Amino acid sequence: MKIALAQLNYHIGNFEHNLQKMLEAVKTAKQQGADIVAFGELAVTGYPPRDFLEFDDFLRHCDDVINSLAHAAQGIAIAVGAPCRNPYAEGKDLFNSAYFLFDGKVQHITHKTLLPTYDIFDEYRYFEPAFEWQVAEFKGKRIALSICEDIWNVGNENPLYRVCPLDEMQKQGFDFILNLSASPFTHEHARERIEAVRHNVARYQTPMFYVNHVGSQTEVIFDGGSLVMSPDGTLYEECPYFVECVRTYDLNDVMRGNNPPCELPKEKISLIHDALVMGIRDYFAKLGLKRAILGLSGGIDSAIVAVLAQRALGSKNVRCLLLPSQFSSDHSIQDARKLAENINIQYDTVFIEDIYQEYEQTLKPIFAGTKSDITEENLQARIRGMLLMAVSNKFGNILLNTSNKSEAAVGYGTLYGDMAGGLAVIGDVYKTDIYRLAHYINKDGEVIPQNTITKAPSAELRPDQKDSDSLPEYDLLDQILYLYIEKRKSPRDLVAMGFDELVVRRVLRLVNLNEFKRAQFAPILRVSSKAFGMGRRMPIVGKYLG
Amino acid sequence: MKIALAQLNYHIGNFEHNLQKMLEAVKTAKQQGADIVAFGELAVTGYPPRDFLEFDDFLRHCDDVINSLAHAAQGIAIAVGAPCRNPYAEGKDLFNSAYFLFDGKVQHITHKTLLPTYDIFDEYRYFEPAFEWQVAEFKGKRIALSICEDIWNVGNENPLYRVCPLDEMQKQGFDFILNLSASPFTHEHARERIEAVRHNVARYQTPMFYVNHVGSQTEVIFDGGSLVMSPDGTLYEECPYFVECVRTYDLNDVMRGNNPPCELPKEKISLIHDALVMGIRDYFAKLGLKRAILGLSGGIDSAIVAVLAQRALGSKNVRCLLLPSQFSSDHSIQDARKLAENINIQYDTVFIEDIYQEYEQTLKPIFAGTKSDITEENLQARIRGMLLMAVSNKFGNILLNTSNKSEAAVGYGTLYGDMAGGLAVIGDVYKTDIYRLAHYINKDGEVIPQNTITKAPSAELRPDQKDSDSLPEYDLLDQILYLYIEKRKSPRDLVAMGFDELVVRRVLRLVNLNEFKRAQFAPILRVSSKAFGMGRRMPIVGKYLG
Repeated sequence: MKIALAQLNYHIGNFEHNLQKMLEAVKTAKQQGADIVAFGELAVTGYPPRDFLEFDDFLRHCDDVINSLAHAAQGIAIAVGAPCRNPYAEGKDLFNSAYFLFDGKVQHITHKTLLPTYDIFDEYRYFEPAFEWQVAEFKGKRIALSICEDIWNVGNENPLYRVCPLDEMQKQGFDFILNLSASPFTHEHARERIEAVRHNVARYQTPMFYVNHVGSQTEVIFDGGSLVMSPDGTLYEECPYFVECVRTYDLNDVMRGNNPPCELPKEKISLIHDALVMGIRDYFAKLGLKRAILGLSGGIDSAIVAVLAQRALGSKNVRCLLLPSQFSSDHSIQDARKLAENINIQYDTVFIEDIYQEYEQTLKPIFAGTKSDITEENLQARIRGMLLMAVSNKFGNILLNTSNKSEAAVGYGTLYGDMAGGLAVIGDVYKTDIYRLAHYINKDGEVIPQNTITKAPSAELRPDQKDSDSLPEYDLLDQILYLYIEKRKSPRDLVAMGFDELVVRRVLRLVNLNEFKRAQFAPILRVSSKAFGMGRRMPIVGKYLG
Repeated sequence: MKIALAQLNYHIGNFEHNLQKMLEAVKTAKQQGADIVAFGELAVTGYPPRDFLEFDDFLRHCDDVINSLAHAAQGIAIAVGAPCRNPYAEGKDLFNSAYFLFDGKVQHITHKTLLPTYDIFDEYRYFEPAFEWQVAEFKGKRIALSICEDIWNVGNENPLYRVCPLDEMQKQGFDFILNLSASPFTHEHARERIEAVRHNVARYQTPMFYVNHVGSQTEVIFDGGSLVMSPDGTLYEECPYFVECVRTYDLNDVMRGNNPPCELPKEKISLIHDALVMGIRDYFAKLGLKRAILGLSGGIDSAIVAVLAQRALGSKNVRCLLLPSQFSSDHSIQDARKLAENINIQYDTVFIEDIYQEYEQTLKPIFAGTKSDITEENLQARIRGMLLMAVSNKFGNILLNTSNKSEAAVGYGTLYGDMAGGLAVIGDVYKTDIYRLAHYINKDGEVIPQNTITKAPSAELRPDQKDSDSLPEYDLLDQILYLYIEKRKSPRDLVAMGFDELVVRRVLRLVNLNEFKRAQFAPILRVSSKAFGMGRRMPIVGKYLG
């Protein structure tokens, strides 16, 4: 028996697009001699479809796609993820299901048992967990069809769920596991995924075929990396990252095992780079957009975003504004220009001084008797945001935001100013990793000017300002942020680890006080296990550590 | 036996505040001769604590509060909601629990079974559902302790859950139901709540004591309305809406039933008015803020917000800017001034023309050869937003947003312009209800100038502009929006109901295309069953109806 894995880039709610893509893959799989072709979890809708699932009309479209796919399942079986209506009155109205289609008909349906409801996942919001289990049978083989999280309860000391669907199916016996996934990227996740598959293969002593999505949906990035593992726990093949593919495997070959090492490299910064490029590309492509704009300050953050955008969209689709004020240093403008020339993107220079003076003049009667403070710094940042939005509105270039995760964490940014933009490209990348990204980008020659990398970070909103005037050094800051945000350490834990108590209290307080700013921030391309945005939900009026 | 219901205004994560409030209420209940005093669901943390629940340090604080309350439970029992750690390795690490405290100790714990995970609720994100049930015993009475949603599965044709915790407890028998709730306000919910209680009383033939939170937490508003119902289904008492109270009831009196009508009035517009005033007041109080600012355009939306803010915070804590341009009509400025004078709030007039000219001048080289379009309209809106934010930053007045639900729905507003602000006061109120609110506010004499109410709505961003130039009339628009957003009707349904297909397609398309704008919008005070924001989660790159 031959099984094809189709690792595809779906588009949420774009049924025709998803169907055509799958029909193409069915054709390819047939050409490769496959008996079964497998698509990802909720491939019919794209993942995550979110509250679209509450619309009956949306579900009717899903049924139509399943019917079309069943019709195409001639001479080949199709395993595909889609929502399925719950026939019982009790419980949620839907299941998250794997359909097994053959000979023009739905032959079998398995519902998902383990519904991830944490971080970016909201599955119990929509779906009833499965409470009955049945293996699928096809051409004399018994197949344990499972969906994503269904395989993740195995091999944990503290499992999230009280049942284990494959344990239930094991009572009926099965020849292999076929898992349809929508398992998002983080820079650590590809490795964890292989381990999860290995735990299952070890427990059930059968091979596993695991198919994932590729492509990104606003903030959620799917890296692909579909894989096949032999019963002895050796990797038979890992599909490539960040590209679509359809590959067919012979079950007998996979059964043999004892495979030579074939794991693909998983270097953190390289993965993040590729994920962000795909994240930008898909954001534009799926919104039907082409062109981006951003402000180039001469600093490292905007330089990185410019390079990523240029790699995603092409030089001709990225334009920049240089927006100097009286506080901008000469080298800032030179560095920004040099970068724009290195990557061959259009740039214009717009001085913000006159507009700034006009605001000062206009506000003079109201501000009489007050001192200059953060207000004036915010004004400059907001003038820049407005000019970028004006050019965006006029020419249809979408504004890319250039804030990094360290800034977003402590609220070092101006709402409606440098926090503006349609997509926050590096909002899940700490400043210390931004430097690593810059070195990675420059590995084959200077793309980002050396001076941009080596100079001290500054917002340049007042004379001789440095980020380190108001924040701890980024090496220290990022450690504390990582331990608090990703690892949920308490002040007590951090002090016990040797961090200064005053610094810890101040940083954690800043993180919590700035929920109100992040609540209005652009969607952030997610590359870590805990990004700001939909995966981290905090009260705004909360008082904890604030 | 006497049971006290303590309907209190908690603050998320502010443990000391919540504890002191509860200790005060214990004292009051004792003075009223109560044997038991009951607080709301997760009263210890405030509701919803969201991802704070993932922090072990946060949970340690909860345990401390429970210990302090147990210590205070002398001569009176305390029923209180708090998270409880799951002792089993399998499943989520927490339960959402009702603690029964007496004589210095935890005497009993009931875990919540039905975990709402829809709209604004994310409970399965944090909690394992109960799978064992036990009634509490106290002074010879058997008490069915339950938590909020636990009573909501009864009386539905299509229940959300497959188990019913009170059915399980009924096997042991109980004398009354004590339900600890955190049941948020919508203008329809108070009525539904009484019906839900009635269904349970009818099914189990015992009285029910139901205690709710009051007060608001950013967007989520709790209206109170705690209640006591006799076994015959007649209401014994309904506690007041939008205020704290501690009231004690004699079980024997409640048992008798046949109570005279005592239901409080529930007029939609009046409820919304009171909810919004409390929503503003608590947002400021819980963030430790005092003063608000907003832009007064002379239109009805900003007029309503000004009045609500003045009622919430007092005249001296609300200031306004009038921000006319060359497109502002004379009556706009007069109407705005008149309103400010009617409610006695500070106002300043700032002309935006000079700043606008300066932007035009600065952008001239880049905009050469282009025509005037939406860009120039957005510029005006953003200049206003920037001026309001500048005064906000300088004097510490938080900007209140004045967009209504109809505008937010179709994207009729400028990101970083009139969509700016810390709190969207009327973002869940359709334009047609805005008019009803204005009449309600004026019921005892003119507060909002008549001309503000009667003139045709206009953004005044170009000469003689009217909202109806680009949108259907609000009467029609709001009907379609309500049916799509609250009732999730499809285009097909709407056309079948008699709406014009082109209008329907256009409106629904606008709603879906503008997710990107709403994703960066301020938190919205929630007064309907489906507000934009945390309770409505839509893909941004999704293609459905877009």
